[in-house]
Amino acid sequence: MHCLNVELGERSYPIVIGSQLLGDPQYLLPYIRGKQVCVVTNETVAPLYLERLLGGLADFGQVDTLVLPDGEAFKTLDTLERIFDCLLEKRHNRSTTLIALGGGVIGDMTGFAAACYQRGVDFVQIPTTLLAQVDSSVGGKTGVNHSLGKNMIGAFYQPRVVLADMDTLTTLPDRELSAGIAEVIKYGLICDAPFFSWLEEHMPKLMARDSQALAYAVDRCCRDKAAVVAEDERESARRAILNFGHTFGHAIEAVQGYGNWLHGEAVAAGMVMATELSRIRGAIDGEVVARIRALLAAAQLPQESPRGMTVGDYLEAMAVDKKVLDGRLRLVLLRSLGDAQICDDTPLEQLKEALKICGAE
Amino acid sequence: MHCLNVELGERSYPIVIGSQLLGDPQYLLPYIRGKQVCVVTNETVAPLYLERLLGGLADFGQVDTLVLPDGEAFKTLDTLERIFDCLLEKRHNRSTTLIALGGGVIGDMTGFAAACYQRGVDFVQIPTTLLAQVDSSVGGKTGVNHSLGKNMIGAFYQPRVVLADMDTLTTLPDRELSAGIAEVIKYGLICDAPFFSWLEEHMPKLMARDSQALAYAVDRCCRDKAAVVAEDERESARRAILNFGHTFGHAIEAVQGYGNWLHGEAVAAGMVMATELSRIRGAIDGEVVARIRALLAAAQLPQESPRGMTVGDYLEAMAVDKKVLDGRLRLVLLRSLGDAQICDDTPLEQLKEALKICGAE
Repeated sequence: MHCLNVELGERSYPIVIGSQLLGDPQYLLPYIRGKQVCVVTNETVAPLYLERLLGGLADFGQVDTLVLPDGEAFKTLDTLERIFDCLLEKRHNRSTTLIALGGGVIGDMTGFAAACYQRGVDFVQIPTTLLAQVDSSVGGKTGVNHSLGKNMIGAFYQPRVVLADMDTLTTLPDRELSAGIAEVIKYGLICDAPFFSWLEEHMPKLMARDSQALAYAVDRCCRDKAAVVAEDERESARRAILNFGHTFGHAIEAVQGYGNWLHGEAVAAGMVMATELSRIRGAIDGEVVARIRALLAAAQLPQESPRGMTVGDYLEAMAVDKKVLDGRLRLVLLRSLGDAQICDDTPLEQLKEALKICGAE
Repeated sequence: MHCLNVELGERSYPIVIGSQLLGDPQYLLPYIRGKQVCVVTNETVAPLYLERLLGGLADFGQVDTLVLPDGEAFKTLDTLERIFDCLLEKRHNRSTTLIALGGGVIGDMTGFAAACYQRGVDFVQIPTTLLAQVDSSVGGKTGVNHSLGKNMIGAFYQPRVVLADMDTLTTLPDRELSAGIAEVIKYGLICDAPFFSWLEEHMPKLMARDSQALAYAVDRCCRDKAAVVAEDERESARRAILNFGHTFGHAIEAVQGYGNWLHGEAVAAGMVMATELSRIRGAIDGEVVARIRALLAAAQLPQESPRGMTVGDYLEAMAVDKKVLDGRLRLVLLRSLGDAQICDDTPLEQLKEALKICGAE
């Protein structure tokens, strides 16, 4: 079992990574302060893991459960309101704890609900997808989508504890496993070249769901992310490197409609776009690009823009992305393999060229 | 002109209290960091003061305006979504500033929208009611109502500056002036006995809208509140004394439907209930009760429970109020005139007696 502590002063919290965590109250109960909990999950995860979690809470006071529909399409203010309805109908007070049992959508919404309910109550994250385990465990980003942009409404809010149980990855569909690995690869690219090499060697084990390899990768990603976030909790500068591939990826998700491409798939294609742009700008050579593409291929991830999506679609969608500051497009590009930086001086022609290389029409 | 600084470390901000502030850019522009602002106001305030405010922003970059319907009934997640729609349609980025021009409803919603939009943008408060000037200027409470409870969804979020312009009080309806004075009186009761005496002497001037007397009262209330909030920004203990009369008041508003009784009117009646309960518990004598009732009468404020509202209505409504911690009812009561404390050991019979004295059926 791995355990790491995210250091944020009085808002510090542990991430526990291992197996058989879900039904074991010793990992959960020390972090629950009141006498009420509400488990928020979805229709896919509930039949698989809800009973196991509730088993560990059998001797606890008031335990309520809310099962939401599954999917990015439901990450909205309307669904958020259903969480508030449930909490108020069941009379949850300020010392309640929300438990997010599910992937990134459940985690983001439940965390945001916890941030807003009575101006802030405790929450616990139990991410059940690889993507959520490496992406949502650290950083405190919570929120919902708006029809005009992804994650446009939200809060920075930290959980009391994160339990990443590798057992939950055994039921993950292949596409979602690959999508999670996209974010794992991202950490190698932006800040951890040795980990990139480790991934080149161990990708077959990850794809075969070897739980020790997965636990190592989750631990490593969380440590990498925690190191970046500790420098800059509120994303004014350094933290933005975590968005490598995401500005392009969000454009793909926005234009294709949320949910048609998985977030990690869109990020994978976006990382290729950012990689090609980095090469065009002279920061990396073709050999590095080839290694990156080979690793993504080994993880069965897409490297091409969706069919029919135009260069104009990207430019339009990226102009409302959060990474735009006062009208200037800020992109995260590679300085070398394992080292990313923010650039706000990308010539439009180079951007268009990178998009076209990746199949934008 | 009065100016005070609310000390909250890096989130400290000034409150400027005076006349002719609204159209004068020197008070506003130093606190705007980006090149976009969005003024959020309502249909009542816009015809009176929007043009004056926009005049001071004539040379600024992008200025958008959103005029919402007026009233507590619109302090909802649905209205909040209209603010997000506007910001995204007009492509406001992370360095935008929201300006709340209006009473408490506009301030609470705009502040909450600022807290959530792209996980947090700047906002400026220009409260145009006496209630908002003394109540919302300090403390960072923002949020919206839910059909099952008032202010159940929100955030703690601080403005960059508050401009309290006494000129805006000249158009305030008499009932709203009185409602604001209810909160002013509250500060005398809970923590400032000398100010209570000042109010006994100067109530005729306040009711006549003498701008110097009003500015003094606003300044004093903001200082009193800032002193309480500085001790305890997140309301775990001491800050709760600011809720004097509010647990009863919220019950009145919830049962009567938001908007039928003004917030300050409900708080006035609630303060009488809390005062009578303090007397029943032996903390204050009948003479103090008489002084408090006389001051509320001079401000033309209600002292009786609404017709038809029963003791059972209060108990039911108070059980979901935020002031309940793990099932125990916490009430703010007077220890003496000018000194309040939190009590969680009130016998039910004494509570019922106080409600009946105030006309609950």
